Amino acid sequence: HVIFYSTNMRLRLPLLCIILEVILIILFGTLVEYNDDTHAKLWNENRTDSATRNDHENEFYYRYPSFQDVHVMIFVGFGFLMTFLQRYGFSSVGFNFLIAAFSLQWATLMQGFFHGLHHGKIHVGVTSMINADFCTGSVLISFGAVLGKTSPVQLLVMAIFEVTLFAVNEFILLSILGVNDAGGSMTIHTFGAYFGLMVTRVLYRPNLDKSKHRNSSVYHSDLFAMIGTIYLWMFWPSFNSAITNYGDPQHRTAMNTYYSLAACTLATFAFSALVNPEGKLDMVHIQNAALAGGVAVGTAGEMMLTAFGSMIVGFLAGTISVLGYKYLTPVLESKLKIQDTCGIHNLHGMPGVLGAVVGAVTAALASPDVYGHGLQRVFADVETGKWNPQSRGGFQAISLAVTLGMALFGGLITGFILKLPIYGAPPDTHCFEDGLYWEPFSDPLVIPPLAKHIHRHA
Amino acid sequence: HVIFYSTNMRLRLPLLCIILEVILIILFGTLVEYNDDTHAKLWNENRTDSATRNDHENEFYYRYPSFQDVHVMIFVGFGFLMTFLQRYGFSSVGFNFLIAAFSLQWATLMQGFFHGLHHGKIHVGVTSMINADFCTGSVLISFGAVLGKTSPVQLLVMAIFEVTLFAVNEFILLSILGVNDAGGSMTIHTFGAYFGLMVTRVLYRPNLDKSKHRNSSVYHSDLFAMIGTIYLWMFWPSFNSAITNYGDPQHRTAMNTYYSLAACTLATFAFSALVNPEGKLDMVHIQNAALAGGVAVGTAGEMMLTAFGSMIVGFLAGTISVLGYKYLTPVLESKLKIQDTCGIHNLHGMPGVLGAVVGAVTAALASPDVYGHGLQRVFADVETGKWNPQSRGGFQAISLAVTLGMALFGGLITGFILKLPIYGAPPDTHCFEDGLYWEPFSDPLVIPPLAKHIHRHA
Amino acid sequence: HVIFYSTNMRLRLPLLCIILEVILIILFGTLVEYNDDTHAKLWNENRTDSATRNDHENEFYYRYPSFQDVHVMIFVGFGFLMTFLQRYGFSSVGFNFLIAAFSLQWATLMQGFFHGLHHGKIHVGVTSMINADFCTGSVLISFGAVLGKTSPVQLLVMAIFEVTLFAVNEFILLSILGVNDAGGSMTIHTFGAYFGLMVTRVLYRPNLDKSKHRNSSVYHSDLFAMIGTIYLWMFWPSFNSAITNYGDPQHRTAMNTYYSLAACTLATFAFSALVNPEGKLDMVHIQNAALAGGVAVGTAGEMMLTAFGSMIVGFLAGTISVLGYKYLTPVLESKLKIQDTCGIHNLHGMPGVLGAVVGAVTAALASPDVYGHGLQRVFADVETGKWNPQSRGGFQAISLAVTLGMALFGGLITGFILKLPIYGAPPDTHCFEDGLYWEPFSDPLVIPPLAKHIHRHA
Repeated sequence: HVIFYSTNMRLRLPLLCIILEVILIILFGTLVEYNDDTHAKLWNENRTDSATRNDHENEFYYRYPSFQDVHVMIFVGFGFLMTFLQRYGFSSVGFNFLIAAFSLQWATLMQGFFHGLHHGKIHVGVTSMINADFCTGSVLISFGAVLGKTSPVQLLVMAIFEVTLFAVNEFILLSILGVNDAGGSMTIHTFGAYFGLMVTRVLYRPNLDKSKHRNSSVYHSDLFAMIGTIYLWMFWPSFNSAITNYGDPQHRTAMNTYYSLAACTLATFAFSALVNPEGKLDMVHIQNAALAGGVAVGTAGEMMLTAFGSMIVGFLAGTISVLGYKYLTPVLESKLKIQDTCGIHNLHGMPGVLGAVVGAVTAALASPDVYGHGLQRVFADVETGKWNPQSRGGFQAISLAVTLGMALFGGLITGFILKLPIYGAPPDTHCFEDGLYWEPFSDPLVIPPLAKHIHRHA
Repeated sequence: HVIFYSTNMRLRLPLLCIILEVILIILFGTLVEYNDDTHAKLWNENRTDSATRNDHENEFYYRYPSFQDVHVMIFVGFGFLMTFLQRYGFSSVGFNFLIAAFSLQWATLMQGFFHGLHHGKIHVGVTSMINADFCTGSVLISFGAVLGKTSPVQLLVMAIFEVTLFAVNEFILLSILGVNDAGGSMTIHTFGAYFGLMVTRVLYRPNLDKSKHRNSSVYHSDLFAMIGTIYLWMFWPSFNSAITNYGDPQHRTAMNTYYSLAACTLATFAFSALVNPEGKLDMVHIQNAALAGGVAVGTAGEMMLTAFGSMIVGFLAGTISVLGYKYLTPVLESKLKIQDTCGIHNLHGMPGVLGAVVGAVTAALASPDVYGHGLQRVFADVETGKWNPQSRGGFQAISLAVTLGMALFGGLITGFILKLPIYGAPPDTHCFEDGLYWEPFSDPLVIPPLAKHIHRHA
Repeated sequence: HVIFYSTNMRLRLPLLCIILEVILIILFGTLVEYNDDTHAKLWNENRTDSATRNDHENEFYYRYPSFQDVHVMIFVGFGFLMTFLQRYGFSSVGFNFLIAAFSLQWATLMQGFFHGLHHGKIHVGVTSMINADFCTGSVLISFGAVLGKTSPVQLLVMAIFEVTLFAVNEFILLSILGVNDAGGSMTIHTFGAYFGLMVTRVLYRPNLDKSKHRNSSVYHSDLFAMIGTIYLWMFWPSFNSAITNYGDPQHRTAMNTYYSLAACTLATFAFSALVNPEGKLDMVHIQNAALAGGVAVGTAGEMMLTAFGSMIVGFLAGTISVLGYKYLTPVLESKLKIQDTCGIHNLHGMPGVLGAVVGAVTAALASPDVYGHGLQRVFADVETGKWNPQSRGGFQAISLAVTLGMALFGGLITGFILKLPIYGAPPDTHCFEDGLYWEPFSDPLVIPPLAKHIHRHA
């Protein structure tokens, strides 16, 4: 028993990190090249060839501010959102940091491999950086489901599999089915949520209530979490618009997301007070449900959804998210044995599915009357002449089904792999506890016997 | 008595939020359209018409980075700045979030209505988003005056009126008087400050000292507040330059603001130590007065103020702000019955007036010698041939008077509306207390009887 | 004794701040002018002259987003990184704020003076703002070495000298030797680190262990510090690319830095666990060593280092940084009497030297085959016809030696100046203590006698 639950990471974590990084470095060395916009020779050759091409047309200036906003969402947004647990702040920010730093490298390779090699090489630039961050976001969503119950070794192993399957699913959706999903309602949120929910289902701990006194927030940890929430909320317009086409699509997507989130926030406050017997607001709802509006316009945001349409979607997303936290999460745990620490089903799962449906409907309603010459800048198949709004809507709907299937199947397999007793997972009595994986720290607030107990145990 | 002071928000807050959002959605559905830069058809039509128009000329690329910086100031800057209170962090960040999310939608309609309809429609894009955030900033300034003493329902009602009057005042200044105020020394700061001061005057609580033990900071809450301060400080150059003309005005405004703030910070530290008997620094000054330099170049920042001029203005602003906190705020409370929780008079009121005066003087000193062909890019009336620096200076000064009048009158009316005993305002004994409006939370630092007492009361 | 150690700042701090700011204002008034891109007349003259020059070519749009990211690193990144001390958060963020606000003004003058006057005037714009922030970063690195042991007056005096010598060293490297160092591995990190280490050596306190109970973190202070870490980590790609040439160099530098940091993070987690007997992670390593990858590609980042090369450099940097914290820092203190509060030798010193070496090697390997027409956009001496990769590499190596010499010599002199007993330095018994310089604050966590003791003492 002691061997199974030993969380000593002295060899396992370093070895895994070093082996992974060495593999990454070798693969990058053999497969990865600068693209036309980052290569000294190629960028300047093209400049000479064409008098109209100037430095300001380098994709850097169109996408880098969005990239940095996305980067903040990944590292500060997700990282601090999960610090709400009273005694898991180091691990929330720290493991988020570790698995994101790994995933973005691995994702560059996987996405590059599936999305098209150039003479056997993967070309990288700011767009690949954004896509890698997006894929990383999906892994961090799944992290939210298993938060506090997994070792960093388990999380890295999960990331290896999830990134790979993410790239496969993304390839099927974007390259084979040719659907739209610039903000990732399907590829990022739905995939990450149902993958993570399946993993946590497989890793079900019947005795998790032994750690329930730590599975909650304190006053200051909720304020740290609000840093994450607010950054995610503010920069979601950049997230959804980061890889849309230049010009009107990027501009429109950012604005649609802005309105969706604003309406979502009012719905969140309204329903948070409404479902409470005393009419009091719940920080869990504010921290999470207010973001559902960004998830739910992840597919349709680049389309002519209108501000009005965006606000309706955002309002619905906030509503179902709060109701999910209040009524569905307890049922998922008690009936389906899904222990979802952060409630990702309410923030990413249901709003992601809503976003996919809204995307399918909006695509099916698209017409040249509304989009004019801009139609082909949103729907890629217009140029190939295969464009048909109804079938487009149909493909969008099929994509949702594919994503759900990939996520649930991938999560199932990955869950069983993570169940092997070799990763130093925390015991049921010490979930949600930084002391297991971090150097002893001083905290005037901690109950001293707890700290001692941890050290004896580990 | 119990009915009057009941803070039970179970029906009032949800109903108000839902009704407001439904009204917003209906109005957006009937009135709001994408502008030329966000509309798929219009943007691409224009592209076809003119070979020189390219995606990089979409206003998105000129303004979106500034918009995101402004957005951070509104949600993180204002939100966290007000977390300095020891037991009001949830409400500071949370209510800031709620009223900002409402105000930006309402402001889009009000500003769109006043600033020019296009065939009966309001056109939206990144500039309207920045303007809406600006108007929201004004509401959040007023929030600072009543912080801890108002319910979220009161704050939403305040926002309805304040946004409307803000749009009227802005219309008078920018469209009728044609003055310059890109960074909002008058429209945002002066207006928001004196509006809020009048509201808090009308809502005067003679027995507020019953809550005085909570009307102060603790060590960690001051650190959270510094997150707000630093973000406001860093991004103020983006705030002041966000809607100036492209090119040199945007560039110059950002730089002038940068120098003003740097000089202001040295003044703040100097005077904070000087006014203290032991020469110790006061976090209240550092958190607030160091920002006054941004307020005070809100009007003149886009003009040829020079780095040198900006630094003088910043130095003065920091000085009067610290002196205001030390000597004026206590007098305002004891003599004028103005209970100004955050000291907005010192951060936004006086520096805003200073900014208006500096703007008037700088405009009056403008000449083609100095500005060359750039004159018309700063002063709009040059193109109409009506330009005259002295009258321009005069109009700037008149604008300050108009703004003060509108703010004081609007705040008076709004204050009396907010005095109605129907909004669930906190009782004098429980101001500055998150427990009234938020789910019970665990806090090892809270004195347990206090928490119990709250629950009994509510 | 009491006079020597009096920390009463009532006159000294205000006088120094006011005198410095007045001098700055006078010098700015006589020496500083808007550059072509910020001047209303000059920018619009140029527009008229050349039909191809448009507003989007204003340097503002190429550099301002990077500037804001750098600005965040300086004020939030450095400021919060140093809040890890349990009782020094106000001073960490506050003094960081003060000395940065001063340094950026002083640096504008010093750098402008050395880097080329225009008819006796210093021209300012966004590039000078970035350079001033860079120089400020160097001062803040040195601040990390003396953190907790110096008064704000000492820090300002240090900044006066350090900024001046920074500008001299930068002039020698960039203008005389003509080397590359866009991200400042040498000019910023190596210089700031060895300057600071020499200062703290001269200020050696044999009895510092009297304050050792405060020279450590608590749970929440480590979380605040992680805000600083994560922002530095995220925005480092902007830091290294902020002043490279437009187009491919800026794009490539950002991407190289991104990969270097990702690899560095895995190395940091690996070695942090490996050097701990229980395999537990140490927050000190995560907070600091994970950033070394950004430092180490500060010189070579703009070159054709490749993602692969960047990852190797990042991995090495993280490794030596963790090992430095574990094994070298204690030796530096016990043997060399260097008390390095933040361990800047591990984060900036050794990785800076590594970055200089990597830069020299990468420059020596540069060839027209690889860079094509882009060669002259990276290596300025190509245009003058003097380019020779081997001598280029040699000059890079010489620059490292010059930087080390300037830093150690400058730190030595400055250290002796700071040793004068006139600046209100904290006594050995009250280092790392906010109570010395800040208004009494309430903190439920503080041991009351300590607070009292401070007041009696001061």
